[in-house]
Amino acid sequence: MPRVPVRPLVRSTTSRTEAFSDGVFAIAVTILVLDLATPAHPPGGLGRALGHLWPAYLGYVASFSYIAVIWLNHHQIFMGIRTMDRGLHAANFFLLMTTSALAFPTAVVSEALGEDLTGKDARVAVALYAGISAAMCLSWTSLYVHLGRHPELLDDSVESAYVRSGVSRSWVGMVLYVAAGVLGALVTPLIALAVFVLLPAFYFLSSSSVVAEEEEAA
Amino acid sequence: MPRVPVRPLVRSTTSRTEAFSDGVFAIAVTILVLDLATPAHPPGGLGRALGHLWPAYLGYVASFSYIAVIWLNHHQIFMGIRTMDRGLHAANFFLLMTTSALAFPTAVVSEALGEDLTGKDARVAVALYAGISAAMCLSWTSLYVHLGRHPELLDDSVESAYVRSGVSRSWVGMVLYVAAGVLGALVTPLIALAVFVLLPAFYFLSSSSVVAEEEEAA
Amino acid sequence: MPRVPVRPLVRSTTSRTEAFSDGVFAIAVTILVLDLATPAHPPGGLGRALGHLWPAYLGYVASFSYIAVIWLNHHQIFMGIRTMDRGLHAANFFLLMTTSALAFPTAVVSEALGEDLTGKDARVAVALYAGISAAMCLSWTSLYVHLGRHPELLDDSVESAYVRSGVSRSWVGMVLYVAAGVLGALVTPLIALAVFVLLPAFYFLSSSSVVAEEEEAA
Amino acid sequence: MPRVPVRPLVRSTTSRTEAFSDGVFAIAVTILVLDLATPAHPPGGLGRALGHLWPAYLGYVASFSYIAVIWLNHHQIFMGIRTMDRGLHAANFFLLMTTSALAFPTAVVSEALGEDLTGKDARVAVALYAGISAAMCLSWTSLYVHLGRHPELLDDSVESAYVRSGVSRSWVGMVLYVAAGVLGALVTPLIALAVFVLLPAFYFLSSSSVVAEEEEAA
Repeated sequence: MPRVPVRPLVRSTTSRTEAFSDGVFAIAVTILVLDLATPAHPPGGLGRALGHLWPAYLGYVASFSYIAVIWLNHHQIFMGIRTMDRGLHAANFFLLMTTSALAFPTAVVSEALGEDLTGKDARVAVALYAGISAAMCLSWTSLYVHLGRHPELLDDSVESAYVRSGVSRSWVGMVLYVAAGVLGALVTPLIALAVFVLLPAFYFLSSSSVVAEEEEAA
Repeated sequence: MPRVPVRPLVRSTTSRTEAFSDGVFAIAVTILVLDLATPAHPPGGLGRALGHLWPAYLGYVASFSYIAVIWLNHHQIFMGIRTMDRGLHAANFFLLMTTSALAFPTAVVSEALGEDLTGKDARVAVALYAGISAAMCLSWTSLYVHLGRHPELLDDSVESAYVRSGVSRSWVGMVLYVAAGVLGALVTPLIALAVFVLLPAFYFLSSSSVVAEEEEAA
Repeated sequence: MPRVPVRPLVRSTTSRTEAFSDGVFAIAVTILVLDLATPAHPPGGLGRALGHLWPAYLGYVASFSYIAVIWLNHHQIFMGIRTMDRGLHAANFFLLMTTSALAFPTAVVSEALGEDLTGKDARVAVALYAGISAAMCLSWTSLYVHLGRHPELLDDSVESAYVRSGVSRSWVGMVLYVAAGVLGALVTPLIALAVFVLLPAFYFLSSSSVVAEEEEAA
Repeated sequence: MPRVPVRPLVRSTTSRTEAFSDGVFAIAVTILVLDLATPAHPPGGLGRALGHLWPAYLGYVASFSYIAVIWLNHHQIFMGIRTMDRGLHAANFFLLMTTSALAFPTAVVSEALGEDLTGKDARVAVALYAGISAAMCLSWTSLYVHLGRHPELLDDSVESAYVRSGVSRSWVGMVLYVAAGVLGALVTPLIALAVFVLLPAFYFLSSSSVVAEEEEAA
């Protein structure tokens, strides 16, 4: 079979995967602004119309933060990945596909909340957002499980506890998003919204130990 | 004539081509989500309206996967490319142009399927998707044929069998997309849809040997 | 705790942050063109309709320049950053979030000016633009303040005067944008527009000494 | 004054400018596809409606090729640039601003041609396209003139004849685009269209000697 060797030093085996992923994350986060369109309004009514867009502002901030935190976690685990195989590419594509899709439920939730904060449509909308977020957590699980089975893809210095903790963290996220979707659909969308805002904050804060390591290792 | 030498170590002759291409792939794959717009619906009818969007979800997953696989193949062949010439730039531009265009037939197919799964418009739509996909395969053929004629552009370790296999693989893809378009237009769009979903999966799975080499070489 | 070491030479601890940020800046600046849509017009009336779009052209040039200058300042400070911690990531995300959002007030201002140059809606619109720009300056302040408190994140050669000057510069920007918003809303939008065009120019010109250093150090 | 030194090896002084520029080029070229929207059509009329979109297809191919050639020229000159100063950043921003703007006249021309191939609106549209293309050539002129005045920004191996040739090439482009706009507005838009398609092809073909050097130097 053909050999396609990697050139030493200049090109690492994960650099293009990181570049492609960074591009997808950057676009996924930036196109969220496309939902912030100038609202229709009578002359002199722009201020009031802009005020009514508050669910869109909330959605922008929440989903931007969410994707930023996903990027940060991606950055951290890829610092420990030495080389890519087919399964890791598949898990990464799954992760990027669910991340890119977030702009859709964000817009759906914003519009539904703007019409009726606790109505039937808002319940459906938060269930959609929760479902796609849960799928994204599942993609993280598949990535960590694959790394756990193929430790040869990792730098020697990455301890298996780190990978196991990633599996747990992503499982917990999936369970919480599913719960948020069910409670948001059956009880009130406000529960789901609280989870959508708080969970990324939790993942950001709980990533600190790894960041501290990054700082220390430099 | 002026000399524009490449700085050693820091800048390889393909790095900016890869960066530009990664950017195009990342955007091409992410803007697919722009087709997933909140559907018009009566109050309380969001759930039903979201259900009717299933062809758009299918299109998103299928085209996202397709472009991800194209990126993976691009990544693999560029690992073996040592330097760029004018013809290789032209083939790469052709490849990026057809990849970027995919968002258009994806939207056309989604809308046509949503209106009538096997109607005249759906037949036209799958023929359009097949045509652009066949053009993309043709761009791969031109890239591999050019490399076959200019082996000096490749790393010494890349065997000519690898390039010949690339020519064959892209020819087969082109023939299958043309066949899918013809059968989809004349018999039923469902045949074409099956090809659109299965062919990228085949190209992903059949790229495994090269990925294995990547892993081994690292 | 798990160790995720950084590979020497090939991967610096800020390179992916810069790549992600460059992606966001590049998209934020490019999607501004999406506001330049073909105007509705009667047959033969395209020229006149294009002329009426002048506030959109002005908005495109002003916001493009603004984001380009932000990128330049980001580039300069990151040349002196050695490693990232959690707080620096948070400040950077805040900066990217406010930069990405600029496309929204740009479109709002363009449309409002096109309808009535000094009307109530134009006043509201410039106040929105000023508010988001002031938030962006605040993100710069938070970044510089964090660096001032954590000099270990910086290269040894970066003097503390540089960081203190960054704090001052961003405070001044915030105050001027707030003043522009208040005066634009209460007196006339034209004052605010002048600030929106002149302030990025000032930040571009006043960044020269650092650029000169870059040149010298190379 | 503060010193912000460049780290050796890992980070060159032009690498982030190239990354940002690559991002802008990649997005500018990819968002052209957003003009290819599913046309309104009666049931069964999709095929005919798609056929009427031919000016949009032509615009996509022409502007994609144009921006790809601009990227190639940008890639080539930046291979010879050693370091950036304020003037070079300004010229590069001007170049990126005009390149990003191309999606706008492309859409305007496509729509106008679709309505009346040689009518008054088509004349206005091609004049707009020519004007923005001429402004882009002017940005190239400013970039080359600046490099001619500041040879210290270039690698020692770049001969001054190369920079002088860049000034001439961009002047010729500007003159030809202005002529195309004037003739397209006064005589027939078809003349302008021919220039829009042929000029990028010329710049692509005439860049060959530099590409050959790149190959040789590697």
